[in-house]
Amino acid sequence: VAGACAGLAQEHRSTPMAARTLLQQALPTTFGLKAAGWLVAVLDARARLSTVRRDGLAAQLGGAAGTLASLGDEGLATARYFAEEVGLPEPVLPWHTSRGRVAELGAALAVLAGVSGKIALDVCLLAQTEVGEVREAEGRGGSSTLPHKRNPVGAVLARSCAELARMHASVLGDALSSEHERAAGGWQAEWDALSGALAYAGAAAASVAEALEGLEVDAERMRRNLDATGGLVVSEALAVVLAERLGRVEAHDLVREAAARAATSGRPFRDEVLEDRRAALSPEEVDAALDPAAYLGSAEALVGRALERWTAERGGA
Amino acid sequence: VAGACAGLAQEHRSTPMAARTLLQQALPTTFGLKAAGWLVAVLDARARLSTVRRDGLAAQLGGAAGTLASLGDEGLATARYFAEEVGLPEPVLPWHTSRGRVAELGAALAVLAGVSGKIALDVCLLAQTEVGEVREAEGRGGSSTLPHKRNPVGAVLARSCAELARMHASVLGDALSSEHERAAGGWQAEWDALSGALAYAGAAAASVAEALEGLEVDAERMRRNLDATGGLVVSEALAVVLAERLGRVEAHDLVREAAARAATSGRPFRDEVLEDRRAALSPEEVDAALDPAAYLGSAEALVGRALERWTAERGGA
Amino acid sequence: VAGACAGLAQEHRSTPMAARTLLQQALPTTFGLKAAGWLVAVLDARARLSTVRRDGLAAQLGGAAGTLASLGDEGLATARYFAEEVGLPEPVLPWHTSRGRVAELGAALAVLAGVSGKIALDVCLLAQTEVGEVREAEGRGGSSTLPHKRNPVGAVLARSCAELARMHASVLGDALSSEHERAAGGWQAEWDALSGALAYAGAAAASVAEALEGLEVDAERMRRNLDATGGLVVSEALAVVLAERLGRVEAHDLVREAAARAATSGRPFRDEVLEDRRAALSPEEVDAALDPAAYLGSAEALVGRALERWTAERGGA
Amino acid sequence: VAGACAGLAQEHRSTPMAARTLLQQALPTTFGLKAAGWLVAVLDARARLSTVRRDGLAAQLGGAAGTLASLGDEGLATARYFAEEVGLPEPVLPWHTSRGRVAELGAALAVLAGVSGKIALDVCLLAQTEVGEVREAEGRGGSSTLPHKRNPVGAVLARSCAELARMHASVLGDALSSEHERAAGGWQAEWDALSGALAYAGAAAASVAEALEGLEVDAERMRRNLDATGGLVVSEALAVVLAERLGRVEAHDLVREAAARAATSGRPFRDEVLEDRRAALSPEEVDAALDPAAYLGSAEALVGRALERWTAERGGA
Repeated sequence: VAGACAGLAQEHRSTPMAARTLLQQALPTTFGLKAAGWLVAVLDARARLSTVRRDGLAAQLGGAAGTLASLGDEGLATARYFAEEVGLPEPVLPWHTSRGRVAELGAALAVLAGVSGKIALDVCLLAQTEVGEVREAEGRGGSSTLPHKRNPVGAVLARSCAELARMHASVLGDALSSEHERAAGGWQAEWDALSGALAYAGAAAASVAEALEGLEVDAERMRRNLDATGGLVVSEALAVVLAERLGRVEAHDLVREAAARAATSGRPFRDEVLEDRRAALSPEEVDAALDPAAYLGSAEALVGRALERWTAERGGA
Repeated sequence: VAGACAGLAQEHRSTPMAARTLLQQALPTTFGLKAAGWLVAVLDARARLSTVRRDGLAAQLGGAAGTLASLGDEGLATARYFAEEVGLPEPVLPWHTSRGRVAELGAALAVLAGVSGKIALDVCLLAQTEVGEVREAEGRGGSSTLPHKRNPVGAVLARSCAELARMHASVLGDALSSEHERAAGGWQAEWDALSGALAYAGAAAASVAEALEGLEVDAERMRRNLDATGGLVVSEALAVVLAERLGRVEAHDLVREAAARAATSGRPFRDEVLEDRRAALSPEEVDAALDPAAYLGSAEALVGRALERWTAERGGA
Repeated sequence: VAGACAGLAQEHRSTPMAARTLLQQALPTTFGLKAAGWLVAVLDARARLSTVRRDGLAAQLGGAAGTLASLGDEGLATARYFAEEVGLPEPVLPWHTSRGRVAELGAALAVLAGVSGKIALDVCLLAQTEVGEVREAEGRGGSSTLPHKRNPVGAVLARSCAELARMHASVLGDALSSEHERAAGGWQAEWDALSGALAYAGAAAASVAEALEGLEVDAERMRRNLDATGGLVVSEALAVVLAERLGRVEAHDLVREAAARAATSGRPFRDEVLEDRRAALSPEEVDAALDPAAYLGSAEALVGRALERWTAERGGA
Repeated sequence: VAGACAGLAQEHRSTPMAARTLLQQALPTTFGLKAAGWLVAVLDARARLSTVRRDGLAAQLGGAAGTLASLGDEGLATARYFAEEVGLPEPVLPWHTSRGRVAELGAALAVLAGVSGKIALDVCLLAQTEVGEVREAEGRGGSSTLPHKRNPVGAVLARSCAELARMHASVLGDALSSEHERAAGGWQAEWDALSGALAYAGAAAASVAEALEGLEVDAERMRRNLDATGGLVVSEALAVVLAERLGRVEAHDLVREAAARAATSGRPFRDEVLEDRRAALSPEEVDAALDPAAYLGSAEALVGRALERWTAERGGA
């Protein structure tokens, strides 16, 4: 997944698209930055899982009750030898009913699943017919009865697996509360829950990877969507420019009023701004201020930082 | 909580009690080892929480969409300065909708709550009228209408808070799946969920601490409960001794049959064993094999290891 | 909520819009049918809640342990009198640790919250900038820094409350598993959970009601979105017409191939169909087959059935 | 399960045992009343499940988007015919994304699982070595290495299945929040979740039934446990008698003080009461007041009411 995200971040480092908050266009961003956000989330989830694999697991040998009594004087030595044999750290104590390790593994899988689910959700939203900014690879997601559909099948599968992974992981959290030296039910529930959490989290990640690897990105459509508000999506940029002349409050009022007039009149926001005498901007100045590609802030630099982290870590895990 | 567990582990390092699996007496252990198990679980949960506090949080400044665009060329520098000001690490990227940090904090709180709940559950079970091995401090848990009751009120409160903490934390996991650059609902749900998770996890830990700090431990009752099966709880020890003479299979058969006869006849298990000619053990040998205090395996050494970890870490956190 | 849904179903009974499956346009439907679907879901949830209120609650008087012992011979009579006083059904037994009633109430609130969340999700999706088919009432959802936004604030609030309601309700389900005659923790957790489930489910419903009551529906935009695929969204309708002449398999092939050609060439699907000699349809016939408003099936009749139910039940609850 | 509960309620209608609140002995009850409590909870859960089976399911035929468009004028008639064929009620509307039905089924299964879990928990607690009031049938729950154990295996299995059933059912609740006319992930997650909820809820009930059907009840041990507090468990009864002479407040003080003295001195509570001159009760009067079997309140009558309901409903479901 990380590799696919990094590839998209790299390739679309400078591809402008709308950033959306509460599912409304808010400001311009780049598809590269969106993919970089996915990338960093995946790297975080992978790092957490690696930490659990490295530090969070431990050999478990304790006899029926954790005292190693049936091994007589050889208890501790045997436990050490056993840990070496299975290649896992030797714990301070046998951990029959200290299920924190299993719960931590569950939590790490749940976060991995959640991150996969977030990427998949974004893909589904971007692939909507009315948005059309991405679609999964040719040959995927066809519908026998509705030939025009290109269903985001990898993303949909990832979302359903992510939900099931998180459900299974929740049982591993419940199992912390186990009676005395062996739980009467909670421990037994772990078996199905652990294998389910592993399988579904893996499936969620695999499905997202498939969805991203062949993802077709429509940069033109991104740009067209970004232009659909007639500049309103960059009104913040205009307000910044105006504030230098008019002060923050008046600049904001001017923008708000022009936006309201545009909504009522159906005329371009740009024209409503030009008409306001307080603005005193030339058409060229307004157009420059309302160019989404010119209001991307630190997006490109941020993508660079994410890719640097990826380069540094890619050998690892 | 850790301090109280360590105190109990130290003081009861050699206090024999029954280890219970599936809520049945299984083998002897010590109360010190039980408390050491709690201690290590608490230290693990604390370490996890400390890691989240140290590495898992990060400053968040990104503007409306994560590009820092309204700050012009000063975006990255401002973000760095902001992180310094608030005393939190600077993240690779603004993390509007990378909610892994919040989910990880929730997971760490859920584990802490779960560990608190496990200790509280053990306390409730040990405090049962028919078990009577511990009770919360004098003056706590009185009932106005039932004057004989000594309710384990701290443990009960801890269990209810642990449940509520885990519930709130689960919302933080759900919130991972957030739309684009700002979730339409999931993010807003985090607010109540995060404060609830913090408050209830803290309350669970505080209640367990109170319950443990004044805990009255009845070592005599522990011993009496351990003797209640007439030696059956140490039948594994006897099987180990017999196996040296008879081989593993026959030793096990002998023990199982004597246990069955004892259950039917009502006579002591010890006497049924002595009567079996295959055993060929003297009464003194049988009594020695059936002494619970002599079948504690590595319990004491294990308590020592847990206390060493506590000593090493207590300054920290 | 039901009233607002009914109003929308009535008013937009014949307003064509795209039905979307897996977030892809699939076929035409009407906004009236969508609102009717919400309406029926709300009526179901309301009916369930009414049933719980009518049959699922019961007076609870049992003394400390459910025997009514402290009332001597007057136990049953007192319990009956008490139930009359509080105006609740008298249960077969006191129900200290039969928490099914509370869990059922929680489940009904969770379903209500879930239905509210579903409606709110649809509103958020329809209100997306690129979809623009609905928006919440004038004056709601303005953003101070992004003046062009019309955030679906009621729907967003409803989604977050729905999540929190479901979380609280889940604790009421956990509490079923209570020890003996009074749970040691689970019962105490019910207090916060029950009031939270009630408050948040109510808030979810109230927020959806607010969002729907002032909802601005853009029927023109619905139609424009429906036309955006150049007839592809009604390709099923065309296949039905063609199947009468060519048989099901060949009709389907023709449609699929024309759709593929349209996607490659950028020419209208309609023209690609006309060009295929197997079709042998006149332009008028193709246009008729590809009119979304002519392929609404039983949508209108179904809206009528939902409204009939609403009329029949509106006095009730 | 209901049949086994009814059998136990009938047989042990007058078998005194300790009622336990917060896992402390509180007052006498009867095992019959405990079993009657289980019975009523099971009947409630069964009734709920029957209601869902009868009213909560419905045929589903709607075409890709719920309009029945591909069926032309025959849509409604076909849907009616289809419902008849599959033997399910015809719904007001096709219910692609009105998942209330599935969520309700999940909720009913979760309650069934929760009730099974509650009974199983009580069995586990009663089967504890130190309580010893019940055990599962001969031949069940033996341990190869610990021959004395009689693990409550049916109850343990029931608890783990109940947990897994509730987990799966929670996904069905989440799936309520589905996008437009077909969810992009939530619906697909229902498949595993629904079959899991059905299978595990069934397994939980089946395991409890097995545990209860062969349950060995030790009435003598129940009585011995009830006597273990030397009358303290019936101190409420004594306070009732004393209140007639001394007033409520002084009676309560007397009892509380005698209980405290008994705890300190180790002498029987009975003797401490006799010594208090305010009491002015004869030894016979005190013994009568402290007879647990005489302080069962309406337990027997309540068992009768539960069995009446069972008799009335047993043909049904």
